[in-house]
Amino acid sequence: MRVVFIGAGNLATQLSRAMQNAGYDIEQVYSRTEESASVLARRLGCSYTTSLDDIFPEADMYMVALKDSALTELLPQITAGKPENALFVHTAGSMPMYIWKGHARHYGVFYPMQTFSKARDVDFAVIPIFIEAGQDTDLEALKRLGNTLSETVMEADSELRRHAHLAAVFVCNFANHMFAIGEHLLQEHQLPFRVMYPLLKETAEKVLGGMRPSEAQTGPAVRYDENVMGKHSLLLSAYPVWRDLYERISKSIYHDKLRSEED
Amino acid sequence: MRVVFIGAGNLATQLSRAMQNAGYDIEQVYSRTEESASVLARRLGCSYTTSLDDIFPEADMYMVALKDSALTELLPQITAGKPENALFVHTAGSMPMYIWKGHARHYGVFYPMQTFSKARDVDFAVIPIFIEAGQDTDLEALKRLGNTLSETVMEADSELRRHAHLAAVFVCNFANHMFAIGEHLLQEHQLPFRVMYPLLKETAEKVLGGMRPSEAQTGPAVRYDENVMGKHSLLLSAYPVWRDLYERISKSIYHDKLRSEED
Repeated sequence: MRVVFIGAGNLATQLSRAMQNAGYDIEQVYSRTEESASVLARRLGCSYTTSLDDIFPEADMYMVALKDSALTELLPQITAGKPENALFVHTAGSMPMYIWKGHARHYGVFYPMQTFSKARDVDFAVIPIFIEAGQDTDLEALKRLGNTLSETVMEADSELRRHAHLAAVFVCNFANHMFAIGEHLLQEHQLPFRVMYPLLKETAEKVLGGMRPSEAQTGPAVRYDENVMGKHSLLLSAYPVWRDLYERISKSIYHDKLRSEED
Repeated sequence: MRVVFIGAGNLATQLSRAMQNAGYDIEQVYSRTEESASVLARRLGCSYTTSLDDIFPEADMYMVALKDSALTELLPQITAGKPENALFVHTAGSMPMYIWKGHARHYGVFYPMQTFSKARDVDFAVIPIFIEAGQDTDLEALKRLGNTLSETVMEADSELRRHAHLAAVFVCNFANHMFAIGEHLLQEHQLPFRVMYPLLKETAEKVLGGMRPSEAQTGPAVRYDENVMGKHSLLLSAYPVWRDLYERISKSIYHDKLRSEED
């Protein structure tokens, strides 16, 4: 199967590599920036372009991994002049499938729920992949692709997928930002972030071991230790954004606890 | 060394067990609630009391692991009538050492930076322990205890320790709350939290592998994908507290990125 990748970001980098390893023929990479396009094309040993007009018109599958706004904007040009049988797929958690409607006959969504970095190869086998397609034969094609890469392939409509994506933003992106704030605070006192490794590891392992996150909650907010919270607020005087987050997240933790006690 | 534990919560449960395994003689447990006191005492095979008046007066060390407000309130009674040579230690990240002043001659702080649950035994060897004491001989005693339990014992004054504790609240308690919000959102759509395990694991492993959290940041906020963020905000209409957190954390992520680009 000849595949063209539209987009050369973190997800495109990792997915194209995994697909190539699984025997898919990645023929070309498109990216708006020469740098991104050429780096990924070199890794894959394929050609690249920065012009939408030069995208190969003869691929079997166009895998589109762009920022949502670029996807919407470029979609008409991406689909224009391509074969009727080509399958157009986007990888965006929050983008509905119907954006393809009227632009292509065969289309779908292939959303691997993972955080990707260009420099860090991930094991696709354990990544849950949410798929959706307009037609049964296209769903089969995406299922085949999914099953080739991963042990967990789930059919999910756009509505379910965007909720999963929203949850993923909290679990991954927002949790990581909490790590980042911790890092900044330690830096101010010349403590390296690695002093946090055991704590961070245990925080993750508790829930990975099967404890529900709401049960695993510890700290001043859940035991409503006003003394500690007041002091922490004061310590954050110089960082109004973080102080505000501190107070609001603490309240949310405590409300969560009260709610679960009512249940 | 004969030790009395004042407090029978998560930290006391884990620390007393580790100290007992290391050869310290845990003689008694105090807790305000019979339930907590008796459960921990049974685990340790020692006696317990729920009355401050019945705390053994003959211990070498009183290890106090109470909620901050209880520590402040009970401190005069805890120290009253105890031998001059007894060492009084608290385990609170945000409590200064000087609270002991005027109440005891030998005192210090022993703060293991970890998240503890009663039911989950942790490996103390990898936990960073921050210690502080009023006198050199007491510092030596806490260093000995620390080194017996852990590979990472750091002297830190109260100022440094409370900053470390604040950072730990973000890295552990707040990150865990992000997991909990994700769990709730998935639950609404009958998705089990375990679909998040690979994402959560990778989020942790990225930074445990040495990537700085600020570098590891991915998601709609860091690439300022207004389309996605707007949709997520809408999806959260029914959860005003989480919507508010969503928007504020997203802003904080983006500001962080702009700041790091300026550096």
